[in-house]
Amino acid sequence: MAQVNSQMALVAFLQAQNCSNYVYSWRHPDTMSDFMTPEYYQRIGRTLEDGKFDLAFFDDRLAMPDKYGDDYVEAVANGIRTVKMDLVPVMSMMAATTSRIGIGGTYSTTYFEPFHVARVFATLDLMTRGRAAWNVVTSLNDSEAANMGRDQALPHDMRYDRADEFMQVVHGHWDTWEDDAIIGDKSGRFADPSKVHPLEHRGDWFMSRGPFTVPRSPQGYPVVIQAGQSGRGRAFAARWSELVFALSPDLQLAKKFYQLFKTQVQLLGRESTLVKICPLVVTVIGETRTAAEEKLALIETLPKPIDGVVLLSEVLNFDFSSKGLDEPFTDEELANISGLQAIRDQVVALSGKKNPSVRDFVDVSNRGNVREHPLFVGSAKDVADGLEEWFSDEGCDGFVIAATHIPGAYEDFVRLVVPVLQKRGLFRKEYTGSTLREHLGLPKPAIGAWKLPAKA
Amino acid sequence: MAQVNSQMALVAFLQAQNCSNYVYSWRHPDTMSDFMTPEYYQRIGRTLEDGKFDLAFFDDRLAMPDKYGDDYVEAVANGIRTVKMDLVPVMSMMAATTSRIGIGGTYSTTYFEPFHVARVFATLDLMTRGRAAWNVVTSLNDSEAANMGRDQALPHDMRYDRADEFMQVVHGHWDTWEDDAIIGDKSGRFADPSKVHPLEHRGDWFMSRGPFTVPRSPQGYPVVIQAGQSGRGRAFAARWSELVFALSPDLQLAKKFYQLFKTQVQLLGRESTLVKICPLVVTVIGETRTAAEEKLALIETLPKPIDGVVLLSEVLNFDFSSKGLDEPFTDEELANISGLQAIRDQVVALSGKKNPSVRDFVDVSNRGNVREHPLFVGSAKDVADGLEEWFSDEGCDGFVIAATHIPGAYEDFVRLVVPVLQKRGLFRKEYTGSTLREHLGLPKPAIGAWKLPAKA
Repeated sequence: MAQVNSQMALVAFLQAQNCSNYVYSWRHPDTMSDFMTPEYYQRIGRTLEDGKFDLAFFDDRLAMPDKYGDDYVEAVANGIRTVKMDLVPVMSMMAATTSRIGIGGTYSTTYFEPFHVARVFATLDLMTRGRAAWNVVTSLNDSEAANMGRDQALPHDMRYDRADEFMQVVHGHWDTWEDDAIIGDKSGRFADPSKVHPLEHRGDWFMSRGPFTVPRSPQGYPVVIQAGQSGRGRAFAARWSELVFALSPDLQLAKKFYQLFKTQVQLLGRESTLVKICPLVVTVIGETRTAAEEKLALIETLPKPIDGVVLLSEVLNFDFSSKGLDEPFTDEELANISGLQAIRDQVVALSGKKNPSVRDFVDVSNRGNVREHPLFVGSAKDVADGLEEWFSDEGCDGFVIAATHIPGAYEDFVRLVVPVLQKRGLFRKEYTGSTLREHLGLPKPAIGAWKLPAKA
Repeated sequence: MAQVNSQMALVAFLQAQNCSNYVYSWRHPDTMSDFMTPEYYQRIGRTLEDGKFDLAFFDDRLAMPDKYGDDYVEAVANGIRTVKMDLVPVMSMMAATTSRIGIGGTYSTTYFEPFHVARVFATLDLMTRGRAAWNVVTSLNDSEAANMGRDQALPHDMRYDRADEFMQVVHGHWDTWEDDAIIGDKSGRFADPSKVHPLEHRGDWFMSRGPFTVPRSPQGYPVVIQAGQSGRGRAFAARWSELVFALSPDLQLAKKFYQLFKTQVQLLGRESTLVKICPLVVTVIGETRTAAEEKLALIETLPKPIDGVVLLSEVLNFDFSSKGLDEPFTDEELANISGLQAIRDQVVALSGKKNPSVRDFVDVSNRGNVREHPLFVGSAKDVADGLEEWFSDEGCDGFVIAATHIPGAYEDFVRLVVPVLQKRGLFRKEYTGSTLREHLGLPKPAIGAWKLPAKA
């Protein structure tokens, strides 16, 4: 299960909203506030491309977090992921002022037709000349359902069943046009109809006939990102992902996940080296270690207690205001959590309690504060050492870098840490390819490449 | 019913596909073929902004035209609106390299949730600093239905009933955030919850709770474009449109439509001067009249007979291959046409036949050839004279300009005709505003402005 890549992948974790994934980031004195302008995103794109990042990737959800107390007031007042713009214009604005970095975005398999999603990402891949990625999610909470015309979110496993078929339809559409279907002879044929195929999909969840209306894009398929970590979610990720956005609290768990997940990919008959595992981590970097610690001390003053319970209610699709702070969750409540089950499972595992309380969820998950994800603090050398250890010990194939504030966290990373990684040969000095697949070392898939090999 | 505007609006009719609305355009020797690159669209945007156009607006449909013979082969082989990319990345790419021109796109009310569409256009309005427009359509044919998970398109009038409620939900979401809701105090509140409101919509077609996740955009509401011309479609347009994309075969009919439609708008209690009527026209311009006629002669060699029947089958949602060329449509067939009934009605009116044949449809509609829409041919002065006549005689408030080829048709218009219109005071010499509403002379709507006044 050795890594084939001698260099790590670097991915930035972005949001088209008022904060990074860390709510407190908008409260940071050195954060930009112009998050509803294109220049905000274009500036981040420029910084990341200057740092030769593989990918800038945007998270999304289809509601503000109003599950807590069934009320949006706290989310609005405290800026708890309040604003969520549509990603496609934002991604496109960043794409228009960059030329090499990959640009990815989240789109749900729960509330859209696969024909539409296939068309959005194929078009993005054309408009970026092969730099598009799709983060595939299943929409997990009732707030999203309520905005999108449903009474409640789909049950956990059913969301993934639907998503599996969704992926078949999307890839099927992406396979509709052969690479050389367009002739473009102005006095003759536009395209060769024998090289354009209908899909004729009729399944349990979806019907879509085709032919697709977008010719094959530069990458064949935009790169598929997935973050499923629960049992059913991980099975889905093993089946479909090319870049896994992993949540591993420490190096030991990261190594375990890396081994398990790559094995799971192989058991499906997929080439495990073609699935890149990148855990979400956060860095706080100073010119000196002391300077970094000063920065961290400031950052730790920024979260508010309300942030964590609002965010946990959102992501677990459970109203945390319905229980006392020290009241244990019942077995039934735990079993019925339909949101991100991976967080539930982690809290149970790390708290050592079969029935953790609200306080345990807040304390163990650290949801909303800088310690929610593995934290690398120190000088550029310190941070590079930490990342190198994870990478060299087969904890990962690269990293998804979260930002304590915008753009400073990425400015620091690009100017201080990237040169150290480059000097050590752990990261590219220049882009050698032009598509995201080339950056990641993923070959352009042939038509039909998404299908699993038949079992012997 | 006098025009209040002393200057006309100019709108370009674009497609994110292999041709303009005229299929033959891709076969024109002087047309660009790089329609799957951002530069293609950015170049058009630059040309139109150089010509001080109000708006570049993109048409769309969710399938290639495969109703004819229930087969896509002719559409693919002949380039009959074969490629249709998703508009949002394409619009955004044009937006990123322009700063003043409005940018509009089509989005269907039939296959998406209104929360999603509201979010897409609010985000576009933010990312363009107030230059976004939404062309509201109801999806009309079975090919689109088959791609989007349905067995057939909705019946004609039902599509509009659904669309009416869709518009209420979208405008309701756009009203969610008051203009000054965001406080952005890093040590205090992000936004004032008393200025952010849920929607709580539960209707016949849609449920959507809110609050919306996008703060109020620069225009309040992106400008609403509509093209409904049939009885039910016109009622919808009178209710919701701010810019009407009109199909009027000649000046007399344009004047009639102008009077009727503005009256219809007034009867609803809306201010009719705030609805701009712009008929679709096409221009062929030469340095001399003879040069223009030479250009036209070439253009008229480009359409193929198959173009018309494929396009008519698509837009009327009726398979024209199912009838002989001279076989009259039965009363029942005519009554059951669920696509653009305005085209059916026009063919009946202009042919003088109660039961026109396939040939009558092709000949009268001119679908797919340059004479499908009012044609202005000649020198810059000739074309400006024609446009001036329509505008001064209250045939319209401006024009939607179709292109015989790309980018030449717009290059000619901008360099030859625009200066003549400017010299006559009929068109702006410079942009005086920065938003599309300002270009069009439409005030920024207050929250709730979409609601009709209560009847006395």
